[in-house]
Amino acid sequence: MGELAASQKEHLEKTLRELAEGARARLPEIAKGNRDGALLAMARLLEEAWPEVLKANQEDLKEAEEAGLSRAKLDRLALKDKDLRSLTEGLRQIAALPDPLGRIEGLSKRPNGLRVGRMRIPLGLIGFIYEARPGATVEAVSVALKAGNAMLLRGGKEAFRSNQALVSLWHRALREAGLPVEAVSLVPTTEREAILAMCRLELLDLLIPRGGEELIRLVQREARVPVLAHAKGVNHLYVDERADLDMALRLAINGKTQRPAVCNALEAVLVHERVAEVFLPMLEKAMRERGVELRACPKALPLLKEAVPAQEEEWDREYLDLILRVKVVSGLEEALEHIARYGSRHTEAICTEDPKAAWRFLEEVDASLVLWNASTRFNDGFQLGLGAEIGISTSKLHAYGPMGPMELTTTKWVALGEGQERE
Amino acid sequence: MGELAASQKEHLEKTLRELAEGARARLPEIAKGNRDGALLAMARLLEEAWPEVLKANQEDLKEAEEAGLSRAKLDRLALKDKDLRSLTEGLRQIAALPDPLGRIEGLSKRPNGLRVGRMRIPLGLIGFIYEARPGATVEAVSVALKAGNAMLLRGGKEAFRSNQALVSLWHRALREAGLPVEAVSLVPTTEREAILAMCRLELLDLLIPRGGEELIRLVQREARVPVLAHAKGVNHLYVDERADLDMALRLAINGKTQRPAVCNALEAVLVHERVAEVFLPMLEKAMRERGVELRACPKALPLLKEAVPAQEEEWDREYLDLILRVKVVSGLEEALEHIARYGSRHTEAICTEDPKAAWRFLEEVDASLVLWNASTRFNDGFQLGLGAEIGISTSKLHAYGPMGPMELTTTKWVALGEGQERE
Repeated sequence: MGELAASQKEHLEKTLRELAEGARARLPEIAKGNRDGALLAMARLLEEAWPEVLKANQEDLKEAEEAGLSRAKLDRLALKDKDLRSLTEGLRQIAALPDPLGRIEGLSKRPNGLRVGRMRIPLGLIGFIYEARPGATVEAVSVALKAGNAMLLRGGKEAFRSNQALVSLWHRALREAGLPVEAVSLVPTTEREAILAMCRLELLDLLIPRGGEELIRLVQREARVPVLAHAKGVNHLYVDERADLDMALRLAINGKTQRPAVCNALEAVLVHERVAEVFLPMLEKAMRERGVELRACPKALPLLKEAVPAQEEEWDREYLDLILRVKVVSGLEEALEHIARYGSRHTEAICTEDPKAAWRFLEEVDASLVLWNASTRFNDGFQLGLGAEIGISTSKLHAYGPMGPMELTTTKWVALGEGQERE
Repeated sequence: MGELAASQKEHLEKTLRELAEGARARLPEIAKGNRDGALLAMARLLEEAWPEVLKANQEDLKEAEEAGLSRAKLDRLALKDKDLRSLTEGLRQIAALPDPLGRIEGLSKRPNGLRVGRMRIPLGLIGFIYEARPGATVEAVSVALKAGNAMLLRGGKEAFRSNQALVSLWHRALREAGLPVEAVSLVPTTEREAILAMCRLELLDLLIPRGGEELIRLVQREARVPVLAHAKGVNHLYVDERADLDMALRLAINGKTQRPAVCNALEAVLVHERVAEVFLPMLEKAMRERGVELRACPKALPLLKEAVPAQEEEWDREYLDLILRVKVVSGLEEALEHIARYGSRHTEAICTEDPKAAWRFLEEVDASLVLWNASTRFNDGFQLGLGAEIGISTSKLHAYGPMGPMELTTTKWVALGEGQERE
């Protein structure tokens, strides 16, 4: 960072300000316009112009390969035909969702006859900072636009041409639906400085960073505007003394192995000491068959054949890999304490047949989703019924959990009077 | 600032961290405990121990007087017997409000049988930074505690002894109700450095600054945690061509003069050019009788006898005084543009008998409260039916408008399963 000369920095800040002002001026039109029409047009245009998009993506890939990007990163950068299907399906699903805007909630009459209520409105202009995957250029915009917001995008440097191609399709879709193209803009530079400039752009109503821990921390540290971000998912399953152990095993397997590299995957199992002797060998066998390495606390180690000791400093780690921590606890109390200390407020689960233990867990654990007898993998906008999501917030303000179209709205108060004055 | 030595700064940070950790550890008990009991005990203790509080307040006043504090500031610092009545009434009213916590909203069954919903929970630990008025030590805590939150207070330097006395009463009230005293803490130093330390205290779920523009801006610039703050209230009344001009006059008088020094007072009137010739002389006469100075745009000036020209740079100013800006506009369109440019998203009103103009105004104006035929003075938690408030947010995230107990809660997702795994 700090690579730009002062004059270039000024130019960048001016460009962002102009894009933001242009978008803000059109917000009422966007809220009133045919937003679902734009989503459907985008689905059709993606199908028609997919070769153009792929061509831009190929150029990005070529350059990224030459720059020596890792295999995993190249894989995330590459658009495939199955992406076309999932993107167009997503757009059509979101277009079919009910409109989150326009309702007046709780309209009620005050003693002086003034009618007051809350009108559901867009947040306004949302900044979105993301990393390599170009599909997000379609998905994130579709959720924001459904809720009547404008969006200023700053995608990963490697995906710049792909993102340009997709944003130019968005502009065609917006025009077809009679909406202003200012609703979607791509920051027209790949300089990293643009991230800092967005953090300081006070014309944004909200800034959403999506990517690695380093990016999220940078944005949280530098932002002068409200931020919704997700921290890592250090997610636990507590196997209670009254758990159905077969169910607990299935939940552990599903949580850890169904898709290990995502934020709602399971990272640690806490086992009640009264069932540890039976459960831990079951868990070890199942995990070994699936190539999962176990790292265990001192009490669990003697009950496991191949586990290695877990280091103190790794109890709050998110592996995103086939590694699972195991800890024996004296009961619900110790499980709650452990989660409060090492959890990341993302997703926490209990497996038990005891409703009293379950409700205490559900009520006391502070996490965006708390589950009873279900897999941590359900912390997802589609799974919880939001229809779509732009990320999972682990900050409690505004939206705690997956953020769908409704989470990208707010309410303002409206008051309908007949000349009321304050006494 | 920067007056503290590094070792003192470290000590301050450590103290804050310990207070915050102490509070966080007791959050489940606070949420489950007899919060209304603590509010009622506080009301009774205030009545019993009022002389103690006044004694501490006298000491604060004496020191402040010696330090040469302005008359207005001394007045805000001084506790009077009418404060006792309003504080105890407020506590009893808030205790009587329904409990915002514990409900599970929208519990519904997903296709796989998983039952999901949102459980209403406290935000957690709230930092509150405020200036001289010691009554806020009672009011703000009562709103936060009603919603199950713990609070870390940093009051004004001048009110330190008063705040200490009030917090020690809170501790007695909490103990009487069986709640942990960690629910309410006062930062035990008057150093300004404590503000910065709170801005960086990542154990806070929310930081609320309440005071002058300078304090708010400092906190917004420095905070590493979510902030809910209110900007100034640059509030307009648009008098439409189809306004009932007598009503418009009453609303202008009420907005400007009923309590000029508060954030929901009126600062500017926009008048449709077709009614300006009739309305402006009415307005001038009424305002002159009430000692209000008019500052006018070039089109309004010839229609007014004593108004002075409004300077370009004052159109976004909050006078908090008996001064009113007047501007003639060509119609609704220009009024909307003017408000979008100079308004502060606080409170905006239209006076008209034309529902079409009214609804366009209600829908398009971006402000925490938009009124039709009613005074801007209604932007207030009690007036809108929240029962209490801790301030008025002009940021759109989480709470846009007055913040009552419900606005100091959030929801987490809960999922009740029977062993569901993700496919």
